[in-house]
Amino acid sequence: MSASAYESLKSRFARIAALNEAAAMLHWDASAMMPAGGGAARGEQLATLAGLAHELLTAPEVAEELAAAQAEGDWDSANLSLMRRSHARATALPTSLVEATTRANSACEKIWREAKAKADFAMVRGALTEVVALQRETAAALSAALGMAPYDALMDGYQRGVTAADVEPVFAAYETFLADALPRAEEIQARRGAALPLSGPFPVTAQKALCQALSARIGLEYDHARLDESLHPFCGGTPTDVRITTFYDEADAAKALLGVLHETGHALYERGLPGAYARQPVGEAAGMAAHESQSLIVEMQACRSDAFLRFLGGELRARFGCEATEVAPENLALLWRRVARGFIRVDADEITYPAHVILRFRLEKAMIEGALQVADLPSAWNDGLEKLLGIRPPNDAKGCLQDIHWHDGAFGYFPSYTLGAMAAAQLMKAARVAEPGLDDALAKGHMAPLLGWLRQNVHGQGSLLGFQDLLRAATGKPLDPQDFMDHLRARYLAA
Amino acid sequence: MSASAYESLKSRFARIAALNEAAAMLHWDASAMMPAGGGAARGEQLATLAGLAHELLTAPEVAEELAAAQAEGDWDSANLSLMRRSHARATALPTSLVEATTRANSACEKIWREAKAKADFAMVRGALTEVVALQRETAAALSAALGMAPYDALMDGYQRGVTAADVEPVFAAYETFLADALPRAEEIQARRGAALPLSGPFPVTAQKALCQALSARIGLEYDHARLDESLHPFCGGTPTDVRITTFYDEADAAKALLGVLHETGHALYERGLPGAYARQPVGEAAGMAAHESQSLIVEMQACRSDAFLRFLGGELRARFGCEATEVAPENLALLWRRVARGFIRVDADEITYPAHVILRFRLEKAMIEGALQVADLPSAWNDGLEKLLGIRPPNDAKGCLQDIHWHDGAFGYFPSYTLGAMAAAQLMKAARVAEPGLDDALAKGHMAPLLGWLRQNVHGQGSLLGFQDLLRAATGKPLDPQDFMDHLRARYLAA
Repeated sequence: MSASAYESLKSRFARIAALNEAAAMLHWDASAMMPAGGGAARGEQLATLAGLAHELLTAPEVAEELAAAQAEGDWDSANLSLMRRSHARATALPTSLVEATTRANSACEKIWREAKAKADFAMVRGALTEVVALQRETAAALSAALGMAPYDALMDGYQRGVTAADVEPVFAAYETFLADALPRAEEIQARRGAALPLSGPFPVTAQKALCQALSARIGLEYDHARLDESLHPFCGGTPTDVRITTFYDEADAAKALLGVLHETGHALYERGLPGAYARQPVGEAAGMAAHESQSLIVEMQACRSDAFLRFLGGELRARFGCEATEVAPENLALLWRRVARGFIRVDADEITYPAHVILRFRLEKAMIEGALQVADLPSAWNDGLEKLLGIRPPNDAKGCLQDIHWHDGAFGYFPSYTLGAMAAAQLMKAARVAEPGLDDALAKGHMAPLLGWLRQNVHGQGSLLGFQDLLRAATGKPLDPQDFMDHLRARYLAA
Repeated sequence: MSASAYESLKSRFARIAALNEAAAMLHWDASAMMPAGGGAARGEQLATLAGLAHELLTAPEVAEELAAAQAEGDWDSANLSLMRRSHARATALPTSLVEATTRANSACEKIWREAKAKADFAMVRGALTEVVALQRETAAALSAALGMAPYDALMDGYQRGVTAADVEPVFAAYETFLADALPRAEEIQARRGAALPLSGPFPVTAQKALCQALSARIGLEYDHARLDESLHPFCGGTPTDVRITTFYDEADAAKALLGVLHETGHALYERGLPGAYARQPVGEAAGMAAHESQSLIVEMQACRSDAFLRFLGGELRARFGCEATEVAPENLALLWRRVARGFIRVDADEITYPAHVILRFRLEKAMIEGALQVADLPSAWNDGLEKLLGIRPPNDAKGCLQDIHWHDGAFGYFPSYTLGAMAAAQLMKAARVAEPGLDDALAKGHMAPLLGWLRQNVHGQGSLLGFQDLLRAATGKPLDPQDFMDHLRARYLAA
């Protein structure tokens, strides 16, 4: 019974995964292709797919099969354990709570759009209070079912294998580093003078050709991928059919280019997942922080490195006729690695970005734990940002209203951005040791040494390990913010 | 219980329809967008969606609910009766037969591609024999469950509400007409002399712009539709998000243009289906013959009419700089309404096309009834075409191997093409009576009078009526081939 129970579960999870793949394609289509009039029907289609996936996961026979199932070997054992976790998360929440959450999130998200446009937090306060109350209920139910702290149980839904207790000292260390490093980086930058802007024009067709050529050059196989346009760039699709998108600005070639390199990092992760466990939990990416580490190791670590900027400069000259002085690596560094204290997370540079995440992590954890009331969020936000970056938002649109996450019910997601950035630095350091020719290759526009190492140590590992264990296996230690700080020191603080 | 049983069934059928909508989008994507490497995963996704839809339809409680359900009013009564039919068709076939059929069709279709390329019927004979045997078994099972003749039960799967007994006299009448009309049309055409070819070039961008502008002009709302490219043009998607495709040939602007007008006819039908019954059986299109009537009424009846050719000529001059003599309606008629006896159905003109269909209808009916063996198909085909059109295929690639249908298990589909062509003529005649300004509008490139009438009499009727009843309600009589013959006489036999 036990082996056949596991086989039966594998078939069931493969069906669930196929439904999720179908949904991923419909999400991509909705952003990149769908005419506006298709929105309502698309909502029905996605709700039906999600509902059926949930029914397959929570059917009465699943609990019995999970109890009886036995699996042999690391991969199948991990797979079975991930099935149990997935089932535990799905069955921990009563249907009434799931439905109330969906309704509250959707209502709040709508109000938030208007509140943000009007910079009026009071408009959304009531709806957000309801969202937070339901998230606290969800966290409590998951906490009881999974045996972890409420906030950890939420974070576990985005990134398995890392807890607030892991994150707190890492963020504290970064805060200390930042207080010293930020003013020094600004001073050094000021001494270097203003950057020369790249001279265009940058026609969309030429930008597209460059984006596609570069992403292919660094490893994206276009018989398993597409590059399209959408308002908000993303990486979607499935491992054998990855869909990345970008948005072209004819005034600025860098936006689409750097964005596509970022999404290519995500896409290469999906492409490198272990095909032998396709459509099984252990064959999926290891989580959102792990995913962000792969987009950032490509975009920030590799493609904004001095070595790769040399190669990129040549491409910009050849394709857009930019001047040699404009595309010199020092100038591209001034343009594309500019440090500036700002209010908006998505516009932030590598050094200040973690401050935005640290602020959000502390506030959302306090809200879930009941230590911070939604009514007090704006002042707590503004105080927190002032403490971290020394600037105070002039209004809530530039403060606690800027991100969709909380207003759409996503609590526990924010740490992933900075855990990913830090993991990227840590992985890059280990990859450089293992592949001594890595930077020489980057200078020629080749990413094969890095990609080969990532396929071995990250992509091909699927969800075999949780976040900390994945880093331990790949780099010999759990998350260590020193590697990220060393990277920032080398890039921004070397006089 | 009875009313709530019907409500429960409506929810179930809405979920099934949402799954089918998702599948329709994934099919469109596979043809218009998907990189080749996504094919295997797409197969898994579509198989999962189809499997779940089948499980929802055949779940044990459905039979009880169908037995208990009561519905009031024409629409809901028809809806319930269509639910019963759908359930009866799905439960009539044992799973083992469905699986054997899927396997046999897929295997035969693969072999057929090679057999066609080599013009070697012997290669595929065994596989096709297996396909036919399983289709006969399927027809027998459906016949028993639905209480209709075996071939009718297959045809009913494509077009409800018409039987072989309806089709046979119609086709016989056409055969008689053809024997006289075809040589006369050829003679008249010969007297008119050769057509002037349109002088290009026809750049793809300009063709696209024209196709999109014309389809929009005749009624396709692009906030609910897309026009893309694929190898084989089709209309897919869903009623609020229709996806039409075409294939551009820079040497010939007519192919894409007339193709897009054809697909626009299909798309307008989907767009006009009754929204109040969206995702219910009665809200769907009335069948394949009804669908083909709508593509052909737009392409053949309206857009190739003398009136519309006058308008189209102006467009061709303005967009491609063609000469006035080239775009004169008489010349466009010579170019785009050319009659020629040929071996290939998809290349056939309006007059000879039905001969290809009549041949296939008789042969497939004989195969299902056991009166024709697969081994005898090539000679029966060649004899039949010779009798109908006076020409004999030089090999089986130009004979019984030309179409995918039978080799993929589609028996009972072929009549739809000609039933659609005939219904289009019959509907057009009725529309002209009801809307006296119809042709004047067409001459100005306006289709509003025709479209308004079709929305009322066809599109908005959904599946309320079967094929013959739909025609009866719209035109006062069941399918009558005389209207189609009158149309051909007026277009091709007027000296």
